[in-house]
Amino acid sequence: MAAQCRIQPGALVSAVTQPTPTFAVGLGDIQQAHERIRDHIVRTPLLESATLNDLFGARILVKAECLQHAGAFKYRGACNRLLQLDEAQRRAGVVAFSSGNHALATSAVARKLGIPASIIMPADAPRAKIEGARANGAEVILYDRQKDDREAIGAEIAGRTGAVIVPPYDDPHIMAGQGTVGLEIVEQADAAGARIDAVIAACSGGGLVAGVALAVKSLQPDVAVYAGEPAGFDELARSLASGQPESNAPGAQSICDALQVVRPGKLTFPVNQHLLAGSLVVSDDDTRRAMKAAYQHLRLVVEPGGAVPLAALLAGRIEARGKTVVLVLSGGNVDPAVYSDALNS
Amino acid sequence: MAAQCRIQPGALVSAVTQPTPTFAVGLGDIQQAHERIRDHIVRTPLLESATLNDLFGARILVKAECLQHAGAFKYRGACNRLLQLDEAQRRAGVVAFSSGNHALATSAVARKLGIPASIIMPADAPRAKIEGARANGAEVILYDRQKDDREAIGAEIAGRTGAVIVPPYDDPHIMAGQGTVGLEIVEQADAAGARIDAVIAACSGGGLVAGVALAVKSLQPDVAVYAGEPAGFDELARSLASGQPESNAPGAQSICDALQVVRPGKLTFPVNQHLLAGSLVVSDDDTRRAMKAAYQHLRLVVEPGGAVPLAALLAGRIEARGKTVVLVLSGGNVDPAVYSDALNS
Repeated sequence: MAAQCRIQPGALVSAVTQPTPTFAVGLGDIQQAHERIRDHIVRTPLLESATLNDLFGARILVKAECLQHAGAFKYRGACNRLLQLDEAQRRAGVVAFSSGNHALATSAVARKLGIPASIIMPADAPRAKIEGARANGAEVILYDRQKDDREAIGAEIAGRTGAVIVPPYDDPHIMAGQGTVGLEIVEQADAAGARIDAVIAACSGGGLVAGVALAVKSLQPDVAVYAGEPAGFDELARSLASGQPESNAPGAQSICDALQVVRPGKLTFPVNQHLLAGSLVVSDDDTRRAMKAAYQHLRLVVEPGGAVPLAALLAGRIEARGKTVVLVLSGGNVDPAVYSDALNS
Repeated sequence: MAAQCRIQPGALVSAVTQPTPTFAVGLGDIQQAHERIRDHIVRTPLLESATLNDLFGARILVKAECLQHAGAFKYRGACNRLLQLDEAQRRAGVVAFSSGNHALATSAVARKLGIPASIIMPADAPRAKIEGARANGAEVILYDRQKDDREAIGAEIAGRTGAVIVPPYDDPHIMAGQGTVGLEIVEQADAAGARIDAVIAACSGGGLVAGVALAVKSLQPDVAVYAGEPAGFDELARSLASGQPESNAPGAQSICDALQVVRPGKLTFPVNQHLLAGSLVVSDDDTRRAMKAAYQHLRLVVEPGGAVPLAALLAGRIEARGKTVVLVLSGGNVDPAVYSDALNS
């Protein structure tokens, strides 16, 4: 992959007035990633529910990434990264820091490829995610989200063992892998005879929504791509407003365990700043309602972070009437108590 | 559709010693049904979980029919039947009796085609199913499962209004529609490079497992097709043992609301008697464990009846080690309280 690929000028939304920026990843990288990982991933279905269509007076298409291997889109990026390691790197192993889904994905891909994996996870991550990474044979190192620096722990392990660090989002290969979600959305919507007006994908470090925006807007520049964020971790919404990377307040709480970063990614923010139509912020109650709606109308288990795009729609953050809107429901790893609480709230 | 189509002799399992029987439905009918309904249904994915594969030392493929429109395979049969009504029949409407999923499916297809629908449901059916049929615009008539005769109620309505009765399973068009699940399984397993050893599908009236057996065994005679049934409603297992249709005891209870018939179907039993390798019977606890496993490893919401094939595997009813086994998870319409109970049990 070329480290710096210029996106096609025609791929940018016409409203962008800044000069064409240079991003870490371009459409070609995402297409190459798709070729590379195609036989390793689930081509997740683009589902449609008559009930959701009726509810919104719109055509709502759901990219069910909760059906991806290891239960989240993260498998795509990890797969794209690990498949490019050489033999010596594979023997030295990989180290990843993650709030959960990147841990599950990296450990699952590593196991499949026979690569040793060390995974650094917050001690308060869902048990399903911690146990899942251990079940995949990874060495799991827990840290304190408020006190410890996960990147420093990762760097220490990498320095000691020679392991390759697999970052959760600030890596061109990871971003390109996540962008394959966008490629498939365009292909599948086309096959369904749908002309997409908008796409919403959750944002934490921003790798998913950046990758999706790069893919979708390169192919269909008029589509509006939105991030979705939980209140308290709405760093992207505030960063888009101020024009510079803003941090979240320490100690913020959200049921969206997968969407808790401190600040926007270094590689992802420039992409999101230039390509996104905005970031839609939802409350935990909005998210619980969306988890229940996905259960009831789609029969999909969606975790809090993965339900945020549907939450944004249910909360009326954008007007969908008469439009075709694609929601990326990006993960489905959730502890039963949290899930039951959403169903019965 | 020819009312009586002879199945290809080569399609029968070699162990069958009876003369080649004549069934109500053949492979050609199922293929025609697939052509007819293809653009109306979800081609549900055939999913695979590394965790389930590891657990059983097998290749476990999951046909996720809970992702079908209206949340169950029933949409296929209803679609195949209603698409063949003429204009006068469409105006007169349809009447269906159903424990729930056939009600949801028939009302959903009727709504899509602009056909009036009356649906006769047990008063103790899950609220999600009763409300769903009403939300689809159907007139819902509730009856007492222990006292009333739903077929008589249906006949009375049909006699009075001229509506066409859409039976839940004892109808060649319905069976052919459900059989399209089997066609897709064969195509999708082939695309995944899998050689199927066994298929398990839940059995109530038997339309699904009969249709699947007809399709799969016509194309791949060596595949063993099993029914799955809940204890208390194991009429097929007992009928296969005795060689004649047996009834369930009145007052039997099961969490599998969708699998509660009195006796095997008239058209489906001959097919199941000749084509199935057996019927696997599971307890309610087995079923709850399977619902939780589908939640945890597949991120699919599966209702009790839909989880029975996975329950049979988890309970060790067949030995899967080293084999490729396809599980049809046939529905996902379940009240939150029942579902939460399964997740937390």
